[in-house]
Amino acid sequence: MNALDTLIEALKRLPGVGQKSAQRMAYHLLQHDRLAMPRLAAALTAAGENIGHCERCHTFSETPICSVCADAGRDGRLLCVVETPADQAAFERTGSYRGYYFVLLGRLSPLDGIGTRQIGAAELLERASEDGVEEVILATSFTAEGEATAHVLAEALKARGIKSTRLARGVPVGSELEYVDLGTIAHALSDRR
Amino acid sequence: MNALDTLIEALKRLPGVGQKSAQRMAYHLLQHDRLAMPRLAAALTAAGENIGHCERCHTFSETPICSVCADAGRDGRLLCVVETPADQAAFERTGSYRGYYFVLLGRLSPLDGIGTRQIGAAELLERASEDGVEEVILATSFTAEGEATAHVLAEALKARGIKSTRLARGVPVGSELEYVDLGTIAHALSDRR
Repeated sequence: MNALDTLIEALKRLPGVGQKSAQRMAYHLLQHDRLAMPRLAAALTAAGENIGHCERCHTFSETPICSVCADAGRDGRLLCVVETPADQAAFERTGSYRGYYFVLLGRLSPLDGIGTRQIGAAELLERASEDGVEEVILATSFTAEGEATAHVLAEALKARGIKSTRLARGVPVGSELEYVDLGTIAHALSDRR
Repeated sequence: MNALDTLIEALKRLPGVGQKSAQRMAYHLLQHDRLAMPRLAAALTAAGENIGHCERCHTFSETPICSVCADAGRDGRLLCVVETPADQAAFERTGSYRGYYFVLLGRLSPLDGIGTRQIGAAELLERASEDGVEEVILATSFTAEGEATAHVLAEALKARGIKSTRLARGVPVGSELEYVDLGTIAHALSDRR
């Protein structure tokens, strides 16, 4: 396979990139942005070599303990459980959470071979049992798998006497009620305050 | 900037990739497809170092003369002028053209500083003047700039007594007339056969 086809095949491994997009990317880089090629290659290599997982919360980190876990100024009473580092980043961008995190790196999906072990449930229970933790916020997705994951973790936490909460379900900010699905409206109604 | 942000910034240089897509790509690679990272890095490096331009037709090539130009079995009477290597690849995929190519690597766009020199008009005239070339097919885009490019090249070829043709304009295969724009229908009508 020649260098162009090899590049197109490699670009197709990116999520959301098919044959046509990969071709367009390869042609664009070769014709208009040659400088971006070594830059992207170096960034990929550096990321692959340097980015591991935080020993404490399992998020992506270049250091053994990530910057959030290493920040003594955060609220140690709160522990927010999310599925992915991307979810954690979204929480951080809201600027409205000052506690710590635990990243599952997945959600329960027995058919795909992802059980409590793969999402690090034991490590989470250990982390949540540490002194000072008063509330575990289960911020998994509101999908069938995310709900199942939250349920299993809530039960396990309850068995150890640890309080857990779930994110509020309701109408998204900025949405017109007419276009919100009925399940969401029903939840928003029952959880009204 | 940390390795993750550097990677996201580098991915954003790809065409059609914004902040959200770049984040998704970076998180996906780090979490689910680590092996793709060195592979893509190597492909980018190899492509950047090895892919240059064919001396004869200006398309992308890893050798001084590309495989099409080096193929003595093609029809030397036909020379097809296209804007990009991607356009050339599309022609090759049709399997219905057996002549040679000349790739402009752009189209006339005076406001962007792209003149006859940047698209290699002189080299094209030289190539078209070679023994055996009987017809130059101007296959630039049917946009204002593509049409202008074809017009300028046709005039220059005519001044040298070289015959040039343009791709047929008409109704695309598989389209319902109701949804075809009026300009296209008008052209298809006047060029009917």
